[in-house]
Amino acid sequence: MKKRVAVLGSTGSIGNQTLQVIRNLRDSFELIGLSGGDNLELLVKQIKEFRPKIVSIKSESNARKLKELFPDIQVEYGMEGLTSVACHDDVDIVVTALAGGIGLVPTYNAIKERKNIALANKETLVMAGNIIINEAKNNNVEILPVDSEHSAIFQCLNGNKRHQVNRIILTASGGPFRGLKKKDLSSVTPEKALKHPNWNMGKKISIDSATLMNKGLEVIEARWLFDINYDKIDVVIHPQSIIHSMVEFIDGSILAQMGETDMRVPIQYALTYPDRVFNTYHKLDLSKRDVLTFEQPDLETFPCLSLAYEAGRMGGTMTAVMNGANEEAVRMFLENKISFLEIPLVIERVMGKHILIKNPGISDVLEAEKWAKEEAYKYKH
Amino acid sequence: MKKRVAVLGSTGSIGNQTLQVIRNLRDSFELIGLSGGDNLELLVKQIKEFRPKIVSIKSESNARKLKELFPDIQVEYGMEGLTSVACHDDVDIVVTALAGGIGLVPTYNAIKERKNIALANKETLVMAGNIIINEAKNNNVEILPVDSEHSAIFQCLNGNKRHQVNRIILTASGGPFRGLKKKDLSSVTPEKALKHPNWNMGKKISIDSATLMNKGLEVIEARWLFDINYDKIDVVIHPQSIIHSMVEFIDGSILAQMGETDMRVPIQYALTYPDRVFNTYHKLDLSKRDVLTFEQPDLETFPCLSLAYEAGRMGGTMTAVMNGANEEAVRMFLENKISFLEIPLVIERVMGKHILIKNPGISDVLEAEKWAKEEAYKYKH
Repeated sequence: MKKRVAVLGSTGSIGNQTLQVIRNLRDSFELIGLSGGDNLELLVKQIKEFRPKIVSIKSESNARKLKELFPDIQVEYGMEGLTSVACHDDVDIVVTALAGGIGLVPTYNAIKERKNIALANKETLVMAGNIIINEAKNNNVEILPVDSEHSAIFQCLNGNKRHQVNRIILTASGGPFRGLKKKDLSSVTPEKALKHPNWNMGKKISIDSATLMNKGLEVIEARWLFDINYDKIDVVIHPQSIIHSMVEFIDGSILAQMGETDMRVPIQYALTYPDRVFNTYHKLDLSKRDVLTFEQPDLETFPCLSLAYEAGRMGGTMTAVMNGANEEAVRMFLENKISFLEIPLVIERVMGKHILIKNPGISDVLEAEKWAKEEAYKYKH
Repeated sequence: MKKRVAVLGSTGSIGNQTLQVIRNLRDSFELIGLSGGDNLELLVKQIKEFRPKIVSIKSESNARKLKELFPDIQVEYGMEGLTSVACHDDVDIVVTALAGGIGLVPTYNAIKERKNIALANKETLVMAGNIIINEAKNNNVEILPVDSEHSAIFQCLNGNKRHQVNRIILTASGGPFRGLKKKDLSSVTPEKALKHPNWNMGKKISIDSATLMNKGLEVIEARWLFDINYDKIDVVIHPQSIIHSMVEFIDGSILAQMGETDMRVPIQYALTYPDRVFNTYHKLDLSKRDVLTFEQPDLETFPCLSLAYEAGRMGGTMTAVMNGANEEAVRMFLENKISFLEIPLVIERVMGKHILIKNPGISDVLEAEKWAKEEAYKYKH
């Protein structure tokens, strides 16, 4: 029987690659639902190819256009549209490839409807890890990581027991500014920050990679996905991005997952798990790679990683606040309103002002994130 | 309940490290039997510490001395003594840490007595892989690899299915002569060949590492342990010996096992499997290792690796012949009777003379190996 898939954020980088995976495995998957943001043209192309039962788009006006083009397909829009796609009766698994905090509510709703989740939206767990993981447990829902790092850890844990884990080691490329110091970064432009050395990704995640906040978000994501304390999550800089992450066990043995930097591999694994399926994607040939290197992250120059650990350890609404402040700070940086070095300053200031709610519900989390964005916005307005 | 262990070859390098592992996990293991070669003094020390129920030593005269020293312990000697230790009623698992072809018969007998095997004697599978693996299946016996490479592969396969495996990638340090060419190797002394860059090992395996025959033996061992074709077993040179081996799956994902070059880790894993147990052995810190490198093996300079693939593909008695010829050639090299470059020549000549038995029994294998040693000996006598 085919697995029936909904892809939230199908016009983005991960969404697009998810459709490539499904295209190559037509016999195993049926695409039930799609959602896109503002890229109407690409969404139309995807609908024509995959003929889903339901689609959603950001704006009502674009939804009207889609309805005219595809009268036999259910068309929705906005936040409610995302939930409608994720919760459609025929869906078995939802790929949450949305960028940013908007992934939370549709993912939460899909879990309540007992849909399995292929999680590519790390903000969902950053903002509300405790709530999401508990809801998944209660509904017997699997949360399968799509991030290459978390997919790596998930694969390394396979067949091993949790109490055997000593440490999770997330690898980080170090981003485009690895090796530079604060004095070198004062006049960095968005264009430079967007140039990731190894991965071709969306704007938000590219800036997060440059500040190391992306790795901070991944630390928090790992804490919830793998039910492990922050003390047992380490980050090591590995500029070649060949080892996607590692697990150290209590006996000193380390398992690592490696491969070319091709997101289709972890996407496919999340969709085919517990199976692995043949593909023709480019295979790693280590003997043609002459060198893999490793170093400690420079927390002085890239304080976002420390801020993420700090927010994670405080828990409650603090990670949502950090995430909201970061999203707004990145937006302001991309609009040349603040400098690269001000990004962590904005986040730190907002976190310092926040009055923590220890055991928040979803609405507390959403409110905290909204508040954090507003506070961050005030930094330059 | 404690696992009850017999260690064949307890006075050798692996045997000694096995006893260290057991010493550190006294609550989990009971040592039932020991066997040693010529090192009476060390064996006596080990018996005093561990108080096994049965011991065996190579010579009858040493056995008599042991009997006087330990009248309450069962003392045996020679090949039959090895089998008595391995097959003792109280033994659950046998660590076969013998060097060379003498490991075969006691291991075979232990399997027939339904003892699990922690296999550190790769010659057992090189000589009689088909027979041993079938006997293990018939008796529902587990063969747990101790070699760091095979332990790595075993750990990477954990939780994955065999049909998902695309390729096994054995790593090799390249030995002390990596990067040299034939012209550089004509006057190599045994002393130089014995200096392994990463591992501290016995003499035979050190020379095998220098010729790459050790990796060839491991290729054949992997073929039987993991039921995989030779076409799907690759060797990559990795001079730092940090990645102990890898498995590439059909989806392009590679799992690797890593760690410091400490044999106690794979020994412990074989003994505690499927559990992992805490230890205080030195842990790998990748950020202090600045570089991991990889290259193709130089088959022109080190033809032993190709000879092993060739013997493996021919099957039957050919791998036993190759192994016997290699053992004798290494012995002659260590005694300065032949040069380093003559080792593969001896093996090739003996293999070329052998009349293959396609489906041998144990006695055919033993006879073929004996014949091969005699033929190899003739090369210089």
